[in-house]
Amino acid sequence: MKTILKTMTPAVQIEKADYKVREESLRIRLLALQKDLAASDRAILILMNGVEGSGKGETTRKLLEWLDARGVETNAFWTAQGEESEHPPLWRFWQKIPARGRVGIFFGSWYTQPIIDRAFKNISKEEFERQLGEIRNLEEMLIAEGVILIKFWMYLSLDAQKDIAKARKAKAATRWRISSLARKFARKRKRFQKVDLEVLSQTHTTITPWTIIDAASERSRELAAGETLVEKLRQALHPTGEIQLQTRPRFKVAARNYIADLDQTKKINDEEYKEELARLTARVATLSDRMSTSKKSLALVFEGPDAAGKGGAIRRVIAGMDPRHYRVIGIAAPTDEEKVRPYLWRFWRNTPRDGKIHFFDRSWYGRVLVERIEKFCTENEWQRAFGEINDFELALTEAGVTIRKFYLATTQDEQLARFKDREITPYKQYKLTEEDWRNRDKWHAYEAAACDMFANTSTAHAPWILVEANNKNHARIKVMRNVVEALEEALA
Amino acid sequence: MKTILKTMTPAVQIEKADYKVREESLRIRLLALQKDLAASDRAILILMNGVEGSGKGETTRKLLEWLDARGVETNAFWTAQGEESEHPPLWRFWQKIPARGRVGIFFGSWYTQPIIDRAFKNISKEEFERQLGEIRNLEEMLIAEGVILIKFWMYLSLDAQKDIAKARKAKAATRWRISSLARKFARKRKRFQKVDLEVLSQTHTTITPWTIIDAASERSRELAAGETLVEKLRQALHPTGEIQLQTRPRFKVAARNYIADLDQTKKINDEEYKEELARLTARVATLSDRMSTSKKSLALVFEGPDAAGKGGAIRRVIAGMDPRHYRVIGIAAPTDEEKVRPYLWRFWRNTPRDGKIHFFDRSWYGRVLVERIEKFCTENEWQRAFGEINDFELALTEAGVTIRKFYLATTQDEQLARFKDREITPYKQYKLTEEDWRNRDKWHAYEAAACDMFANTSTAHAPWILVEANNKNHARIKVMRNVVEALEEALA
Repeated sequence: MKTILKTMTPAVQIEKADYKVREESLRIRLLALQKDLAASDRAILILMNGVEGSGKGETTRKLLEWLDARGVETNAFWTAQGEESEHPPLWRFWQKIPARGRVGIFFGSWYTQPIIDRAFKNISKEEFERQLGEIRNLEEMLIAEGVILIKFWMYLSLDAQKDIAKARKAKAATRWRISSLARKFARKRKRFQKVDLEVLSQTHTTITPWTIIDAASERSRELAAGETLVEKLRQALHPTGEIQLQTRPRFKVAARNYIADLDQTKKINDEEYKEELARLTARVATLSDRMSTSKKSLALVFEGPDAAGKGGAIRRVIAGMDPRHYRVIGIAAPTDEEKVRPYLWRFWRNTPRDGKIHFFDRSWYGRVLVERIEKFCTENEWQRAFGEINDFELALTEAGVTIRKFYLATTQDEQLARFKDREITPYKQYKLTEEDWRNRDKWHAYEAAACDMFANTSTAHAPWILVEANNKNHARIKVMRNVVEALEEALA
Repeated sequence: MKTILKTMTPAVQIEKADYKVREESLRIRLLALQKDLAASDRAILILMNGVEGSGKGETTRKLLEWLDARGVETNAFWTAQGEESEHPPLWRFWQKIPARGRVGIFFGSWYTQPIIDRAFKNISKEEFERQLGEIRNLEEMLIAEGVILIKFWMYLSLDAQKDIAKARKAKAATRWRISSLARKFARKRKRFQKVDLEVLSQTHTTITPWTIIDAASERSRELAAGETLVEKLRQALHPTGEIQLQTRPRFKVAARNYIADLDQTKKINDEEYKEELARLTARVATLSDRMSTSKKSLALVFEGPDAAGKGGAIRRVIAGMDPRHYRVIGIAAPTDEEKVRPYLWRFWRNTPRDGKIHFFDRSWYGRVLVERIEKFCTENEWQRAFGEINDFELALTEAGVTIRKFYLATTQDEQLARFKDREITPYKQYKLTEEDWRNRDKWHAYEAAACDMFANTSTAHAPWILVEANNKNHARIKVMRNVVEALEEALA
């Protein structure tokens, strides 16, 4: 495992005068590159990791001194608190992903909690490795989305750590720095070292390498950090013919047309509908109230062609619910703050916290439906989206979010009939636009894309439920029954 | 005080069939108006208030059923929690101000906490009235910024409240609704009634009237809420010649040119500078560390013409600070999410939470400087901004944020010399743009606007500090000294 340390930038003695010269040159190059970055479609994310006393703070301070601080945002992450703890562990990091053109520094990162949990044996080896796998996927995705990821590890040998701790104890001015937590950690130094090296080894990939710096000498540590930043920025912004590393999408073409297989003759008559709807509404009311005070939450995705009845189905589900407990999120074009961040950011902004139920009227699946068909994204982008979305949904599920995804399917004839009805019914006219007619021309392309979507993203924890929607009564009751089941399962 | 109840919409008996007809008509009108709203530059904010059991939840549910739920966001506010409690009381409401074209429903509002605090006598009459005054100013500002504010109060007489409580207790299905908190409130019913009426009377203005609805009858309550919404929307979106109410700006023209009065010959030589800088840097380091674990925070505003040294001064202050404790916020053009909300929203997004120090490199004063001069806003907008900004800063101060505002002033000649220097120094070139030269032509207009700004917004709690900035050493030391003083004052 110690082989990973062979990649480390060693600590070297640097004279003050020499340091000054190199610092000056570094700063000029950094500012110039930061200006190029601001005009580019890339963002930098720096993860600042390392043991207590390794100078993470001092190095960050230096970087901020060298850079134009207005383009940088530093975020410190400790234990998740308040709303943070009512979301998946990755949520708080997602909220702070830097926008294009900007620099984000994460002080303490997604590595911190798994390392602590593993060092204190709060989690099993399997869970630890699952979390590292999750991190690897996240990092690959960020890089594919154009984020320049720089992972610093400030390394100190056990002896160096002990020396620093001793020096700190001796120095009155810094004695207050030694918190009881730090003392608790200090007793586990060896154990931490072992876990650290394990993490470094397992998450050092060609695409997401670590930059390990020997932190024993302050000047060489700071210059190494600065030089690395310059080099990574230069490579990313002014590539000299290197081959761009790209992740290979995990993607399979659907084997059959699931939508054509649906039995669209399924019907529920009005009397039975009314009775069953009343029963289910009451059930949803009771269960959603119970959920509101629990640590569980629910994400309900609604997809399907125009006029398939997504809105109507949602309206029936919310009818019995307390408006404080749910949100209906209509997904339209992204805002400019959303456009300058990785694709999934705008959905991570809208994941339900504990107790809440979120309805997505269209969703992150836009990537593999409308964006794929209208060519709003590249082939690589929509193909890798399947894996990214599965990771996203798994992260939610692991954190207590139950997910159900409804695809409301009508036949082409039924859609035409509904469009015509919308044209003549006053309070429905607002729903029909030119675009709806245009999308209709691409019916088969959308159907094929939807089938690929089912084949690639219907998982045990986040299944697709195909709803025969030619008969509205049937569709609504089927949705309601599945929502009730999902609530029961979540609260069981 | 009971005269306020004369404005109340009475409860009337409505037959079910009649209700159905009116509901249908209401829904058609609401959807049409919501569509007009989506295309307008207005937002709706509905405050849903009233005693326990008055049907706030049920009415909100109805509104959401009638409207297109995708355009609506419901937010429930209880006691401030987590990060919310590390900001001014108004902060959490600001975060949720609806965007233009959308509907926001606040379930529990800025009235809730003052009412509870006053009913339980946690705050004095004076503090209570101060808070109501703050709310009045906030509401006036929102309306001036184009928000359609609808304040619902669901009224129940004391007898009606008791009847409902009895009925609930009897009904097994709803018994769980009676929390221990509700019981505590129920014992204070009379006291709450008194405070409620006081609040209604004191915050019912021509510009921000209450809509009080007798909540005793469910059907008439719901229709009254719906009809009010239709009427307010119609008035706002399709005005029929009524006079628009506008707040009169509180604004005075500066009596003298404070900037011309500055003694720009003030100097500090390099040796003295180095020594004093080192001393102050250490002091800032210690004090900012202490602040980081306190309930206090600091907002530092930097304004002044291009090349006056704002960035350089900030760089000196942060040199000794832990990057986890501060943020440098460069204010440029607003994003589109910012453009669709009241002007101050983007600053409320960036106020420091407990323990933090935020540097604003340019700030909310852009409204009365560049936006005034370049005519990016109307005269009414920049004139009322003075009062709005004073309210904003007061709200921060009341919540433990210490504010210092630095205006770095150079002479015109000095600016020219610095521009020329920037042209020839490689790592400074990025700072100089065409716009800087254009701004230079409007030197006197900017100077006059700055003086108006000092005259109207230099308050005891948030003073302007004019910094003679021709000599950089002097300017930086003056800023540092004031920052140290501010930190000491905050932590005293």
